[in-house]
Amino acid sequence: MTYAQQMLDAYPAEINLDRGRLASVIDALSTCAQACTACADACLSERAEELPSLTRCIRDNLDCAEICATTGAVLSRHTGYDARLTVAQVEAAIQATRTCGDSCAEHADRHEHCRVCAQACRETENALKQLLPELQPAGATGPPSKSVPQQGR
Amino acid sequence: MTYAQQMLDAYPAEINLDRGRLASVIDALSTCAQACTACADACLSERAEELPSLTRCIRDNLDCAEICATTGAVLSRHTGYDARLTVAQVEAAIQATRTCGDSCAEHADRHEHCRVCAQACRETENALKQLLPELQPAGATGPPSKSVPQQGR
Amino acid sequence: MTYAQQMLDAYPAEINLDRGRLASVIDALSTCAQACTACADACLSERAEELPSLTRCIRDNLDCAEICATTGAVLSRHTGYDARLTVAQVEAAIQATRTCGDSCAEHADRHEHCRVCAQACRETENALKQLLPELQPAGATGPPSKSVPQQGR
Amino acid sequence: MTYAQQMLDAYPAEINLDRGRLASVIDALSTCAQACTACADACLSERAEELPSLTRCIRDNLDCAEICATTGAVLSRHTGYDARLTVAQVEAAIQATRTCGDSCAEHADRHEHCRVCAQACRETENALKQLLPELQPAGATGPPSKSVPQQGR
Repeated sequence: MTYAQQMLDAYPAEINLDRGRLASVIDALSTCAQACTACADACLSERAEELPSLTRCIRDNLDCAEICATTGAVLSRHTGYDARLTVAQVEAAIQATRTCGDSCAEHADRHEHCRVCAQACRETENALKQLLPELQPAGATGPPSKSVPQQGR
Repeated sequence: MTYAQQMLDAYPAEINLDRGRLASVIDALSTCAQACTACADACLSERAEELPSLTRCIRDNLDCAEICATTGAVLSRHTGYDARLTVAQVEAAIQATRTCGDSCAEHADRHEHCRVCAQACRETENALKQLLPELQPAGATGPPSKSVPQQGR
Repeated sequence: MTYAQQMLDAYPAEINLDRGRLASVIDALSTCAQACTACADACLSERAEELPSLTRCIRDNLDCAEICATTGAVLSRHTGYDARLTVAQVEAAIQATRTCGDSCAEHADRHEHCRVCAQACRETENALKQLLPELQPAGATGPPSKSVPQQGR
Repeated sequence: MTYAQQMLDAYPAEINLDRGRLASVIDALSTCAQACTACADACLSERAEELPSLTRCIRDNLDCAEICATTGAVLSRHTGYDARLTVAQVEAAIQATRTCGDSCAEHADRHEHCRVCAQACRETENALKQLLPELQPAGATGPPSKSVPQQGR
């Protein structure tokens, strides 16, 4: 059992989400953030003639790393849960992992670090997409537009 | 002239955005991130009987701080610009500053730090909303759905 | 094999550190950052009468979360390695995990999330302490004081 | 008056530091974090033949950006102040701004963004060095070794 799962199990109030699924998304986001940070740096250490083709990949790695880390933190907080904020940040992370996954996939056959990083991005994108429908406020029929009641108190 | 403006002026490739407006948004995001971090901590130092009413505000502060910092970093990168990713992250920041601004505004008459932080959130929300229409890919008629050509090369 | 290990194995230049040990430190830092973020939030959701005794723990959690995340990113970069910077940041992380581990340990018998988080902090502190001696520039006899040659090029 | 100063003035408990000096350090760290993020990206958009000479600078920029942001957050929290943790993180930031300032200074005559970023790093390094002696626990004669009493409660 990962620490993310243990911490969710120890949360002292309600969480209106499947804790097992949530833990696996949080773990995927941590992993993806680190892989993207490492991939940006590995790109920088490639041979000089490779560098110009990798600048976009490096930029996407940096965005994805930071967005995944932030999204993991948002999903780790349950006090005063606001579905609108969480949904918006998860949608940004889905886009970031897709963009970065696409960039890394373009270089996957030349650079092993891009291949591994693309895989981390795809897994995280899929995990986020499975979580997204659960994040809607109960009974909502349209896009999330109202804060749900604060859970932690 | 702020450092953000100087750095934009020194960027060696094109940026398809008004650099003055962009600099002011980046500066607002930095300021808001710091104000939210400080407001969460100031809430923690309030008297014991105030704390239970401030837990939601602290949580919103923490989310908003992290989301503003990440959004400021995304807007500070122009190499390989992807409108979809930028738009999604800016939308998350608009929601985060709105949510946190609302939370802080509820406590503005009791806690000066919440009043100041709410003001920082409102200013940042407004700056982001003015920037948002500029972020769409040129000629787009619907929601952003395709990567625009990489700018930096 | 974790993604951190796979990314280290795919790094295209030399790393003057044991890659297995480094991967386990990076993984511990990611885990600890998430546990601390979650513990701060779990503290906020405790009953009103518990909150005043937890404010220091929340603050230490927030510092430790951010310092661990930053240290993990620094240790994930190997291009242009500078031993002085890495050592200084690792020392800050050792202090942060010790401070936060102590704070959480004080509440471990009352709050399961503090018990779990204290354990994550102790494991990370120990992992960092084992790594620290390896980070010194080769042949250094005093405190790290010179940049080592850039590795990535 | 900056928001950092306003937030310090609104802090509801004691701070054993000059609030004006502290606000200027926090503002410098925010500014430096953004400048370093922007400089890394500007380097990536330089012409292909320049890139190989800039990889170390990019790496130092990324470390410095993240370390400055984290240090600014630590200095924005006063509840349960721990001098040892704060000193260790400030020392890491002094090293990061020195390392990154040196890297950028090497390219200052070729790249305006490196010149501006080097200046931001130097100003921040100097501000941190002036703050450092104030962070020692009162009456301490050696290196900081004990937690000072919690201030916020």
